[in-house]
Order: sequence, then C-alpha cells, then structure tokens
Amino acid sequence: MTRQGDGGQAAAALDLGYARVDTDRESRQGLPEVVYGPGKTAGQIRGIVTGLLTHNAGPVLVTRLDEETAAAVGEAVPGGRYDAASRLLVWRPAPTPARAFRVTVVTAGTADLPVAAEALGVCRAVGLAADVVADAGLDRVLAVRDRLQASDAVIVAAGMEGALASVVGGLVRCPVVAVPVSSGYGAGLEGVTALLAMHASCAAGLTVVNIDSGFAAAMAVHRIAQIAEGRR
Amino acid sequence: MTRQGDGGQAAAALDLGYARVDTDRESRQGLPEVVYGPGKTAGQIRGIVTGLLTHNAGPVLVTRLDEETAAAVGEAVPGGRYDAASRLLVWRPAPTPARAFRVTVVTAGTADLPVAAEALGVCRAVGLAADVVADAGLDRVLAVRDRLQASDAVIVAAGMEGALASVVGGLVRCPVVAVPVSSGYGAGLEGVTALLAMHASCAAGLTVVNIDSGFAAAMAVHRIAQIAEGRR
Amino acid sequence: MTRQGDGGQAAAALDLGYARVDTDRESRQGLPEVVYGPGKTAGQIRGIVTGLLTHNAGPVLVTRLDEETAAAVGEAVPGGRYDAASRLLVWRPAPTPARAFRVTVVTAGTADLPVAAEALGVCRAVGLAADVVADAGLDRVLAVRDRLQASDAVIVAAGMEGALASVVGGLVRCPVVAVPVSSGYGAGLEGVTALLAMHASCAAGLTVVNIDSGFAAAMAVHRIAQIAEGRR
Amino acid sequence: MTRQGDGGQAAAALDLGYARVDTDRESRQGLPEVVYGPGKTAGQIRGIVTGLLTHNAGPVLVTRLDEETAAAVGEAVPGGRYDAASRLLVWRPAPTPARAFRVTVVTAGTADLPVAAEALGVCRAVGLAADVVADAGLDRVLAVRDRLQASDAVIVAAGMEGALASVVGGLVRCPVVAVPVSSGYGAGLEGVTALLAMHASCAAGLTVVNIDSGFAAAMAVHRIAQIAEGRR
Amino acid sequence: MTRQGDGGQAAAALDLGYARVDTDRESRQGLPEVVYGPGKTAGQIRGIVTGLLTHNAGPVLVTRLDEETAAAVGEAVPGGRYDAASRLLVWRPAPTPARAFRVTVVTAGTADLPVAAEALGVCRAVGLAADVVADAGLDRVLAVRDRLQASDAVIVAAGMEGALASVVGGLVRCPVVAVPVSSGYGAGLEGVTALLAMHASCAAGLTVVNIDSGFAAAMAVHRIAQIAEGRR
Amino acid sequence: MTRQGDGGQAAAALDLGYARVDTDRESRQGLPEVVYGPGKTAGQIRGIVTGLLTHNAGPVLVTRLDEETAAAVGEAVPGGRYDAASRLLVWRPAPTPARAFRVTVVTAGTADLPVAAEALGVCRAVGLAADVVADAGLDRVLAVRDRLQASDAVIVAAGMEGALASVVGGLVRCPVVAVPVSSGYGAGLEGVTALLAMHASCAAGLTVVNIDSGFAAAMAVHRIAQIAEGRR
Amino acid sequence: MTRQGDGGQAAAALDLGYARVDTDRESRQGLPEVVYGPGKTAGQIRGIVTGLLTHNAGPVLVTRLDEETAAAVGEAVPGGRYDAASRLLVWRPAPTPARAFRVTVVTAGTADLPVAAEALGVCRAVGLAADVVADAGLDRVLAVRDRLQASDAVIVAAGMEGALASVVGGLVRCPVVAVPVSSGYGAGLEGVTALLAMHASCAAGLTVVNIDSGFAAAMAVHRIAQIAEGRR
Amino acid sequence: MTRQGDGGQAAAALDLGYARVDTDRESRQGLPEVVYGPGKTAGQIRGIVTGLLTHNAGPVLVTRLDEETAAAVGEAVPGGRYDAASRLLVWRPAPTPARAFRVTVVTAGTADLPVAAEALGVCRAVGLAADVVADAGLDRVLAVRDRLQASDAVIVAAGMEGALASVVGGLVRCPVVAVPVSSGYGAGLEGVTALLAMHASCAAGLTVVNIDSGFAAAMAVHRIAQIAEGRR
Repeated sequence: MTRQGDGGQAAAALDLGYARVDTDRESRQGLPEVVYGPGKTAGQIRGIVTGLLTHNAGPVLVTRLDEETAAAVGEAVPGGRYDAASRLLVWRPAPTPARAFRVTVVTAGTADLPVAAEALGVCRAVGLAADVVADAGLDRVLAVRDRLQASDAVIVAAGMEGALASVVGGLVRCPVVAVPVSSGYGAGLEGVTALLAMHASCAAGLTVVNIDSGFAAAMAVHRIAQIAEGRR
Repeated sequence: MTRQGDGGQAAAALDLGYARVDTDRESRQGLPEVVYGPGKTAGQIRGIVTGLLTHNAGPVLVTRLDEETAAAVGEAVPGGRYDAASRLLVWRPAPTPARAFRVTVVTAGTADLPVAAEALGVCRAVGLAADVVADAGLDRVLAVRDRLQASDAVIVAAGMEGALASVVGGLVRCPVVAVPVSSGYGAGLEGVTALLAMHASCAAGLTVVNIDSGFAAAMAVHRIAQIAEGRR
Repeated sequence: MTRQGDGGQAAAALDLGYARVDTDRESRQGLPEVVYGPGKTAGQIRGIVTGLLTHNAGPVLVTRLDEETAAAVGEAVPGGRYDAASRLLVWRPAPTPARAFRVTVVTAGTADLPVAAEALGVCRAVGLAADVVADAGLDRVLAVRDRLQASDAVIVAAGMEGALASVVGGLVRCPVVAVPVSSGYGAGLEGVTALLAMHASCAAGLTVVNIDSGFAAAMAVHRIAQIAEGRR
Repeated sequence: MTRQGDGGQAAAALDLGYARVDTDRESRQGLPEVVYGPGKTAGQIRGIVTGLLTHNAGPVLVTRLDEETAAAVGEAVPGGRYDAASRLLVWRPAPTPARAFRVTVVTAGTADLPVAAEALGVCRAVGLAADVVADAGLDRVLAVRDRLQASDAVIVAAGMEGALASVVGGLVRCPVVAVPVSSGYGAGLEGVTALLAMHASCAAGLTVVNIDSGFAAAMAVHRIAQIAEGRR
Repeated sequence: MTRQGDGGQAAAALDLGYARVDTDRESRQGLPEVVYGPGKTAGQIRGIVTGLLTHNAGPVLVTRLDEETAAAVGEAVPGGRYDAASRLLVWRPAPTPARAFRVTVVTAGTADLPVAAEALGVCRAVGLAADVVADAGLDRVLAVRDRLQASDAVIVAAGMEGALASVVGGLVRCPVVAVPVSSGYGAGLEGVTALLAMHASCAAGLTVVNIDSGFAAAMAVHRIAQIAEGRR
Repeated sequence: MTRQGDGGQAAAALDLGYARVDTDRESRQGLPEVVYGPGKTAGQIRGIVTGLLTHNAGPVLVTRLDEETAAAVGEAVPGGRYDAASRLLVWRPAPTPARAFRVTVVTAGTADLPVAAEALGVCRAVGLAADVVADAGLDRVLAVRDRLQASDAVIVAAGMEGALASVVGGLVRCPVVAVPVSSGYGAGLEGVTALLAMHASCAAGLTVVNIDSGFAAAMAVHRIAQIAEGRR
Repeated sequence: MTRQGDGGQAAAALDLGYARVDTDRESRQGLPEVVYGPGKTAGQIRGIVTGLLTHNAGPVLVTRLDEETAAAVGEAVPGGRYDAASRLLVWRPAPTPARAFRVTVVTAGTADLPVAAEALGVCRAVGLAADVVADAGLDRVLAVRDRLQASDAVIVAAGMEGALASVVGGLVRCPVVAVPVSSGYGAGLEGVTALLAMHASCAAGLTVVNIDSGFAAAMAVHRIAQIAEGRR
Repeated sequence: MTRQGDGGQAAAALDLGYARVDTDRESRQGLPEVVYGPGKTAGQIRGIVTGLLTHNAGPVLVTRLDEETAAAVGEAVPGGRYDAASRLLVWRPAPTPARAFRVTVVTAGTADLPVAAEALGVCRAVGLAADVVADAGLDRVLAVRDRLQASDAVIVAAGMEGALASVVGGLVRCPVVAVPVSSGYGAGLEGVTALLAMHASCAAGLTVVNIDSGFAAAMAVHRIAQIAEGRR
C-alpha cells in the first residue's frame, strides 16, 4: 500500500494489480470509495470490498450489480445486503440520525422507478432519510407539493422530455438534482433529450447528473448534507 | 399558365421563370400560396404577389420580410399592410366571422414573442380569432388556465426546454401545437433540444412544428379550423 | 385518493404506490388516462386498469403490450380485447357515432404497417371512423387522392425520408399529422431523419409527433375531433 | 395582479402585457425572480425591475446585460449597480452575514473568467461569501487545494475538456457545481464536449449546469446555502 | 514540373509553391483541374489558371468566386468570363456538340436558385446542353414531367426536406443527382437533413452529392456524359 | 387494379391490401419494382412477386432476404434463384448483352464484401457485366488501376474513413458511385463517418448512396447504363 | 502476386481473391500487415496468415479474435499463440532488445483493462518493453508518477470523461497517446465524449486514436520507437 | 509564487491574479508554458510573457494572436518576433541543432495553409527542422513520397474528408500526426468529419489532434523528438 509523507498529495492506495483501491477517500471525502460493479468479476469485487472493509470504517457499496454476481460476492464477504430493485450490495450501512437530512426522490412515471430505487438505496446507505414519490407526472405533481416543500433536497428522476424537473424546480427552495432517465423511445434519444432539456430549463439553480445515475444524484445530495450538517 | 384537363393532377401554375406560382392551391387547400420572403428580391415578390392577387381571391401573405424589402414591395403593390413585429406583409386579410375559431398563442418567456407574433399575425390574416398570453412560465401558467381552456386551439411557443408545451398539453382538451423557439443558449442547441423534448413529451396528442415557425403553427390551426367549420 | 377542494388545481389521483392514476383526466380531457405498457408488470397494469375502469366511464387502453403480458392482464381484468398487430389491449371501446370523424391512416410502405395499426386501433377505440391505406408510396399516392380528400384528418406513417407526408400535405386541406417511422437503415438514423425532414417540409401546416408513435398521432386527431364536434 | 386564495397553486403574477412578473417567487423560493436581459428592451426591463422592487424586498438582478442597455435602465431605475465583467445590474444586494456560506469559483484558464465573473457576482448579490481562484489548470490546482477544501461549495468553470471539474471533485468533500464553458475550438463543440464530459466524470456527486451559465451555478449554490442555513 | 516515366502513377504536377497544379488530370479524366476559389488570393488564382491554360487545352473554371476577386483575376488573365449568379469564372468553355447530352436542373424553390446556377454554369462550360426548371415544388413537378423525362440526366437542387429528389427519382428513368441545399431554417440543420433524407429516399438509384455543391452534381453528370458518349 | 385514363399521372397499382404493387414502373423506369425483404412475411412477398411476374416482363428481385424466408418464398414461387452472400432472390434475370456495360465493384477490405455482393448481384440481375475487386486498400489500389480504368462505371464499397472512394475518383474518368459501409467501430459511427467523408471528398463528380446499400449503387449504375445504351 | 518494376508505386500484393495481402508493407513500414479478425472466417484468416508468414519475416498478428476462431486458426497454422484477454493471436513475436523502448499503458479504471490488454499485447509482440498500470484514477495517478516519467511513451486508456489523459499529459515529457474507451453509460456516448474531450484537452502535444483501439495506440508507439531507434 | 518542498506535486506557479503561470513546466516537460492568445488582453499577455521570460530559459510563444495585439505586446516586451501567417509571436526561439529532427508538414490543399503555417512556426521555434509541402492532394502525393519518407515525423493538415492522412500513413514508417482542418463546407461539418474519418482510418498508427490545431501537432512532434534525442 503506497503512502506518501507530509506532502500527501498522492492518495493512499491499496494496489490489487487489477485495481488501486483509494483507501484514503473516506478521510478525504467522508465516505469510502464506492465500487462500480459492471465489468468486474466476483473475485475482483470481493478483493476490493475486503480491502475497503479492512482499511475503512464507513459504509461499503457496490452498484449496478446483477443478482448472480451479488450472490457470489455476498457469500464470499459476509454481512452484505443485496437489493434487486436498486441493484445495490451494501455492507455497514450508516445509521440514520435523529434529525436526518430529508431527501425526496420523485419520478415522472413508473419507468423511472429503477433509477429512483438506486438513488433511494444509496441515500439510505449513507445515512440520509429518503423516500420515493412515484409517478408524479406533470398533472399530478401539485398533489405532492407539500411533501416536496418539506424536503431538504429533492431528486427528480424523469425520462421523456424531463419537464418534471423544471416544474419541481419552480415549486421548492431546496436543492434539486435532476436525473435524466433513458426510458421512452424515438426523440427521447435514450436520455440525451432529457439531459439537454434539464440543462436548458428555466428553473434557476437546478443541477443535473448523468443519464440513469441515481447513484450520482444521491452522492450529490450526500455532499450537500455533509456541508449542511457541518455548519450546524 | 399551364392547366391540365379533367385529370388535373398537375396543379395549375403561373410560370414566372424564377418561380412557379401555384394558383390552384386556393381551391385545393382553402388559402392561396403563402410567399416565404427570405432570399427573394422585392421584384420577385412583387411578381408573385401580383399573380396571386390576380388569380386568387383570398388573403395574400409574405412571411419573414425585413422592413426595407417590405417597403419596396408595399409601394409596388398597393393595399398591403406590414407589421414589423411579425415581419408579415398582408393583402386582403380574411374577415373574422361572428363565431370565429378561437386560438390562444402562449409564450414561455419574452424571448418567444417574435415567434408568437408571427403565429398571431398569420392566424388573424386567415380569419381566426387569436390572442397572445405572454410569458406564461411554468409557475405562472395555472393563472391563465381558464383562458386556455376556453380556446378551440392553443399554440405554445417555447424555447429552452420546451416544458410549457407539456404542461399546457395536460391542462386542455383542445388541439395543442407546439413551436420550439431557438432562444436560450448552450444546451438549448438553438431550438433542437426544445423540438426533441416536445416530441418526447408525455402529454398525449401534442403536435410539433419546425423551430421558430409561428407560421407553420398558424397554418396547422387553420387546417383544423377549416375542418371544424366544415363539419358544423 | 387525494382530492382537493375548490382550488382544484391538483388533479385527483389514485395513489397505488407504484403509480398515481390520474382519474381526473377523463373530465379534464375527455378520455381516461392511457396506460403505456412497457416496463410495467402484469400486476401493476391490472391495478391501474382496475382503477381506471372503476373511477372513469370511457374507454381504457393499454399500449405497446406484448402478447404474454396482455394474456395475463386480460385474464385478471375481464372484458378487454387484445389486438396483436397494434399491441393494444382495450376495454369499453367508444361506439362510432353515425356521423363520425373520418380519419385515413396512410403508410409509405409495408414496414410502416405496425405503426399504422397502432394509430388505427387507438382511433377506433376512441370512437373515430378510421381506415388504413397501405403502401401508398410517392408514385402511388395520387391513386388514392380521392380517399384522402374525403377525410376529416389524415395520419401519415412514413420512414426513410418521410417525403410522403410532404406530398399528402400538399394534396389535402384537412389536418395532416405525420408519424416518422424507424424502419429503414443507414442514413435514416432510426427515424430521426424522417422526423427532421417532416419538420423541414415545405407543406404548410403539417404537424409531427414522435417517432413510431401511432398512439400520439391518434390522440392528436382525437383532440381535433373533439373540438370539431364541440363546435357543431 | 392575479392572486388566488387559500388554494394558492397559481403564483401571484404582475401582468405587464409583455411579461408576467412572478412576484410570489420571493416567498416561495427565498429570492425575487431574476431578470434575463437578452432580447428585452430597456423599457421592458425597467418595467419588470420596478415591479420587483415594489412587490418584493430582496435583491433584484438583471443578467447578461450589455453596457448600453444597463446605462439606460440604470438611469431610469436609480440605485442599481452595474458590473461590466459579470454583465450584472443589481439593486439591493443582500448583505453578507457574519458567518456566511463560503463559495470558491475556480477557473481552468483565463478564457473562463467571464463565466466566473457572473457566478461571483450573483453569489455576492445574494449574500454568499465568494471568491475566484483563476487559471487553476490541472497542473496548478493542487497548489490551491487548501482554499478549495476550506469552502462550503465550489463552482468550477472550465471549457475545453472540462477535466478540472473531475479533479476538483476528487479533492473536496463539499458540493461541486460544474459549469462547462464554450471557450476553445474544434472538438470542444462550443461547450457541448465539456458538458458531456463533466456528466461522464468519475468524480462521484459532481453536478452540472448549462454551458456558460455562471448564473445557474450560483443559484444552485444559493439553494444549498439556504438549506444549510435553515438547518443551523 | 515533376513528371514520371513509364510507371506514371505520380500525376504530372506544376509546383507553384503554394499549390501543385495537376496538369495531368485533363488526359486522365477528360477535363483540366477545376480551381476552388475561396481562400485563394487573386494572385494565387492567376498563377494556377495561367498554368492550366498553358499546359492544358480544355475549359478552365474557377468556382465560388466573389465579384471583386473575379475582376482582379479577369484583368490579369484575359479571355475569362464571369457570371455573378453562378460565381463562376470560365476560360475556353467547351462548345456544345450537335447531339449534346441534355441535363435538366430542377429546383424545389427560389432559394435553391444559386446552387442551380452553379450546376447550370458548370454543365454548360463543359459542353453539356443544360437548362433550369425553377421552383418545381412537389405540387408543381408533374407539370414539368415531360421535360424531365426527355432529359439524359436530371440534377435536383432542394433544401428543406429534399422530398423533390424522391419524387423526381420516381418519375424518370435517367440518372438523377440530388444536391441538398442549405436554405431553410430550424430542423433543416443547414442542409444536413436534406442530405440524410435524400440518402434514405425510397427512389431507387438516386445519388447524392455534398450540400450546396452544384459543381459536384455537374461533374457527376459530366462523368456520365463522357461514358455515354464514349459508348456511342 | 386501379388505372387512370389519359391523364395517367397516377401509376397503375395492384392493390394487395398490405401492399400496392407499382406494376407501371417497368414501363416508366425500365425495370419492375424491386421488393425490399425485411419486415415482410413470406406470404406477403409471394403475393407481391406473383403480381410482378404476372404484370411485368423483366427481372424480379427481392433484396436483403434471409435464407429461411427465401426458402419459403422460393418454394411457393418457382423459378427463383437465391444467393446467400448477396441475400438476393431473383426471377427472370436479364441476359447480359454482347457489348454489356462494364461495372467494377471495388472494396476497401474484406468487411465490405457483403455490400459488394449485393451490388454485384443486382448489377448482374439487370444485365450489366459486373465484377468485384476485393480488398483494394489505399496502398493496393494502384495495382488494379487498369481494371478500374477499363470500366464503364465503378462502385466503391468502403467503411472506416471511406478514403478509397476519393482515391478511385481521382484515378478514373467514368462515373464512380460510393457506398459507405457500416463496418469498423468507434469513430466510424456505423457508416455515418464514411458517408460524410465521401461527400466532403475532393474527388470531383463522386456520388454517394445510402450506408450499406449495394442495391442503391447498382440501381444508380443501371440508370446510367440505360441512358448510355439509349444514346448509342 | 502482382509486382511492379522500377516505378514501384503499387505495393506488392498477394491476391487471395477475398483479400489482397500487402506483402510489401514489411519493407515499407517495418512490420508485416496486421490482420483485423472480425468478419473474416477461420479459413480466410488462415490463408492471409500463411501468406504473411511465407512472404514476410517479422511478427504476424491477428486482432480482435474470438476464442473459437482462434482455436481453429491456431490448429491450421501452427506456432501461433493466443491470449484471450487481448484477443490477439501472434506468430513470431519480435524479441525485446536489451535497451528496449519502454511503454507504460495506464488505465483509468478496471473497465479499461481489455483495451489496455490489446495495447500491451501488440507492444510486446513488436518488441517494445511494455507494462500496465491499472486503475490509476485521477486521485491515484500521482502515486505512479515516477513510473510514468521513466517511460519513453505512455498510452492512456480511459473511458468516461477521459480526463486521465489530460492529467498524464501534464506530468510527463514523453509522447502520450490517448485511447478513448467505450465503457460507462449515458453522457459517455460509447466513447465519443472521451474522444472529443481528449482532443479538446489543454495538455499540449497529446495525440488521440480511435475508440477502444489499443491496437492503434500500440502501432503509433511502434512508429515512434522505430524513429527513435533509427536516430540512435 | 507558490513553491512546494520535497513533495513537489504542486507545480511552481506565478500567480498574476488573472493567470497562474506554470513556471515549473520547463523543467517538467522541456519547454516553457505556451500562451494561448485569444481572450487575453495585451496587458495580460505582457504580464504572462514577462513572467515566463524571467523564470524560464527556453523559447516563449504566444499562439493565435491577431496583428494588433501582437504589435502592442511586441512593443511592451522587446525581442519578440511576430509572423502573420502563423499568428505566432515568439521570443528566444531555440536554435536548430546540426542533426535536427526533420519534420515535414503536408497539406491537402491551399485552404490548409494557415494551419500548416502554425505547425511549421511552432516546430521551428522549438528547434525542429521543419518544411511544408503544400497542396499534396491525393493524386499528387506520390510525387513527394521521397521527401515524406526522408522525414523523422510527418504532420498532415487536411480538411474535407481528410483522406490524405490515410494515404500518407500508408507510405511512411515514421510517426504521422493528422490535423483535421475546418475548411470546406456542407458535409465537412467544420472539420468534424475529417476528425472522425482520420480516427476511423485504416492506416495503422496514425494519431490525431484537435481541429485546426497546427500547434498541437507540433507539440506532439516535439514530445517525440525529445524522446528520440534522449535515447541517442
């Protein structure tokens, strides 16, 4: 494991040959490195996860993991919990504190639910108090306005034209993170249209993450929650 | 002037050398050919307009005309009326009938006003009862819901992400024609994002016309009005 | 089921957890919400359909449904009729009135037939008198001109370059709704070329819906028919 | 001025004919509506600003304003302050509180300075404690790591390939908002490449706003600051 | 001037420093090299043209030349003839033989005339019998069918959706070369939509050249005419 | 079978319900309609082919047909010959005349062979004397220059960057039809890069057809051959 | 086998019918032609490889070969060695000289390993001393700076936003060849975003090869090594 | 001026407020930082250049500078030399050593000359022996083959379809750096087509830099030359 002296610019890394695990990230960013599952073998994931569990103290997450690989990894590294809807495998989830940061994940339709599930799962694993409001289409979103306005942050998962993000952005004063979803067909261009539309939105202060990345949205909210808690 | 016999598949056309004026269109589609101004000299426009005024009976329109050319044409062919906001030059506008078809042109912001002006001007020139509701952003559109619901058709001119079209589409039962506007910057891609987003919209039955084409939207409504009147 | 008082801006919605059914849409737009099939389980569809059949009175449609799911849903909710060509599952189709609105669905080639079938099925389910004219390529469309000119609205389903829409738009005076189709290969860019070409068309008043969406075209015509009937 | 009762879903709006001023936004979102300058006449801006100053209590901003129009508006509505670098015209800037939210705006090169200036100006106008670290290219960013890590939020304005955002995202634990900048040439595609690259970034929890929009980034941080302050 | 022996693979070239004039092309392809005007000074063009007039015997053409440069070149190299509509400067045009190859250049609208003028001018300069049929829109093209069917080749210059090329392709049996034109706006994407649509066309055997290149179309027809004459 | 009188603009068409067979095309364009296989059932193809064999006298082709469907159709309609490499099913191929039009099909690599096979097969079926020169990469094309220069037309099938078309275009004086091929990966964008590059080529008079369409290239050459023969 | 005399411009080629093997390339470029595997049958590959082994003396490589075809070819042409990770089949690999050119292949994440394996395998097969540094993400790259700075050339394989190439480009003075990788999802656009970002990079002198082409990067380094060795 | 101790990861930087001059780059990469001119004032450039001249010993370059700014900077910082063709302003150019690295810059046409001039100027300023071969189109490149094969590296500047790079790549064994040029029109997409085509090229080992960046190509060659010299 390389480690540098007082200069310290080079993060401590556990070199596994096929991967260099950034064991320093927890102290630097408040959360251990999260493992992106696709393209890694069960053996590789086991190695990385074991390294993180050993060298770090916080929650350890693997994302976008299919059930079969999850079973193999889970057997090899006990204590993990897999959720098929969010495709997340989690060890040592953070407890939700008494006055937790409240996140609402809103979806425009049922096709956005898998993305919302990932956002929800990651939020909860890192100690945020998160809930989903499903299928809050444009003509149904006003019905849940109170829940949105009571949130500390809102994640909007929306495919098609992504207009729900603009509408929610205009209803609440808290941070809104938009996730374009690749559902739909034709002119939706597999999420690219929603991504561009969310950027072009007239709702001031809306921010956007990558297509289908419930994970990225949850991590953005985690950063916000950390700073908000730090200032208390 | 070519004219074919009973077969009649070839539309009658007045051949001016630089243009073939489709004098038959009035009987075929209920409105004389409309002249697209850009790229034509004042002399060419004069020739085409004179041909239309001579061989047809209804309103004659020139679109997207700059003031200078409009002045030259207007002097050469009396009776026309130019409006700088809509860039339209019109002869023999149709009278608005007693129980006219009611069109509301809605804009998402002030940047959409030139496109709305063209739609308004064309609607009125062909005998529709049209009005503009300006700057009806997402958080202001509910305030004008009653006016929208009292319309026979709604034209939505919206740039940026074009979400206003989706919202209006969910509020009214009448036909909604969306015009993407090339205002905005960056991810708006000069109207292409709005065009794609309007197509990907979840509002069922929304139709879309070309970027910035208030003219095309008005003509689509004109087709609808003709069929609605014809069925009375 | 949330319901708001006199303000009423928030549509009544039946909250099923995985979906919020907009039971108010029938009174607002003249037709119950239509269920988009892909990505929903048979159980979810059954729940939504049952809600719509209970709280609404008009036709209930599920679109883009594969045969297997259709069979499961159809068994659970009796009275539905499935059509494999259009992939539609329909309960309580509207009767076609004596002097029904006449819609002609035109295709440019046999590859456009599935899209045409969806348009046809939706039109008929909502009470329009619809027929298909198949394979009316550019050099064959004049042969069916009379049928087109006798229509109250025309839907054109065309892939490749989409030129049929321009040609039809120049032949008839009624509303023309163009559906770009993702058939073809190479430069057709899975329907994007046809979509852009239809927008750039010189046929005034042509409107366009999303790629392959026979449903959207039918709903656009349904809006037109409603307003035309309302004005009678 | 329309105002609705207890329902209140329709935001109060001051209808000026050419614009509907959302005077309710201050109470709903903590800041009066911000006026987007381009495409509006000095007279229109004067009208909107006067309405906001009258009906709201907080800071009033006009963005992307050229010097000439700013001078005309400034003369008509006294008390405003114009800054040419940020193209902002501001009335009643918010005071910076004792323990203000600290924002660092980082640029990748000097070409990003105008975008940074807008972000800086808006941050300061709404009461945040903001500073710029200019030209912190990839090989120079480690030298300012301490300043970045002492921030409550970081805004990264970067053109070309936008890699600075990824690097900063890996250095700090606070929220990072990336602004793609349209500087550069060729493969930069006027900012589109940077926008896409920032989304594809491996730095977890990075969020992105529209190309060149220092304003959007500042507003995103304003939302974060509000929630952080509210939780204190 | 480099010249190679019997191997001869390297074309003879006159090296002017700023340009290498392919003096061998006339014997290889039946026509001297054509000079593309933009980006060259009058002095450079004079040098190249003088070289071609000296070493070759056939027509010498400069394309896309503005009037000012044309005047300067024309003065320096006598015998040339400039045509402002086609922006062509031509020396030693080929005579039109008794039984010349007949080319018809068709345009979809008046905006396509400059492209048609270039095609026409190049055709005539190389000895083809060419004429223009202007503004033959979709609903007017049947009126000129006889002229099209009497041609040995047809060039179609069409912007917007380019549908005219498909229609003409279905009417005639001779070669049809389509030139997409960058006229129009919005979804026309400066000619790219027409280019793609012409390729996706259902008219079998249609070929396409670069956007706005009347020159390329004329040269394609020149190749065809050469082979047709050679087989006589 | 619809047939119109003296006007005759509407092509004679055999209406099969699912397809309208353009039986008039043979007299209009010198070749019966060619059947595009994908998306049609064996039964539909049988119906169309039978119609063409009955009402027309020339070769009948079905393109892009998989082996299984070909077998089914071939059994139902005797006399056809299927070639798996070109995916063509052909009845009544035209005899190759004594002094046939000579076509050379050149490929840039072995990945282009299927496209070349289709071009070759169609050429031969319509009576042209065609051959393939395979794998004539940039550094190997000079070795086959003589064969190219002895051709009446050259078809270049090339993927990747499509540069072979430019090189061939500079070597021969006869018509060159370029077919972009979707082989390769990454920046080749499934043939779109080759298509654009072929259009941007500096080889004057090169024409281009749709990606992977050996058929379209062969039909373009067929048009050329017809006119060349007609002029003999 | 065609061979030309003193002119020699046409490379010697072994014509196999389905392929023309450029046996002259070894003398011209210092390495026999490399065989691209996809789309070729085992029989075709055997023929080409046999030709290369017979007429050339250096290493013979087949790229992107699946295991099954590799087994068939390997059996038919003894002496080859297949590596499943790099999908390379190699005969007669070049020996690594004493003072070999040192290449370091760096990857941004484990998803880039297959591309790195191809680069590594090709480098070694042509006699370069190559090693891989895996998973050197932005926050881990400084830890391997010394290894990078001790290299004669660096290949960076990076997907997502490709920022690692920029960072490495700023750390070393030797040539850096960037390979965009098609891993990732959404805004990564299958490697296109990384390709564009690498080009827009601020790291001076970075060069880029095609998406996923470890082979192209290795060949670029091979050219550099040849020239560097030649100058010794 | 920040400077770090033994850790040294943070490059020494001269902080001018508007810019952070990377004075450490000369020792790290063998050449002082090069100043990109556009968007910087004469005063800013003077400040940066003065810093570089003071803290570094090698050549100092400003790129893409217009004549007016160059004159102002040149007056303020004596000793610089401006070249209008390359838009370069250079102080302390490196001497060309006796056995200098030989670079040939090839252009496909005269429109590529400005890009070639920048490449040439930068090469010479950093001590390489560079020359330009202008207008070496596809059919003229063989005539200069000997000059190309005598080079240590070749830079190819080519617009349109960029095929010259593929051809040159097949002729020489040395490194070839391709610069796509934004000349041409239509399907050239302002250099994007050439960029993609160069990447898709079949010439193994070709590398590519950003559109129009003669500077980037020269810097890539400088890296190669450094490593080649270092190994001598």
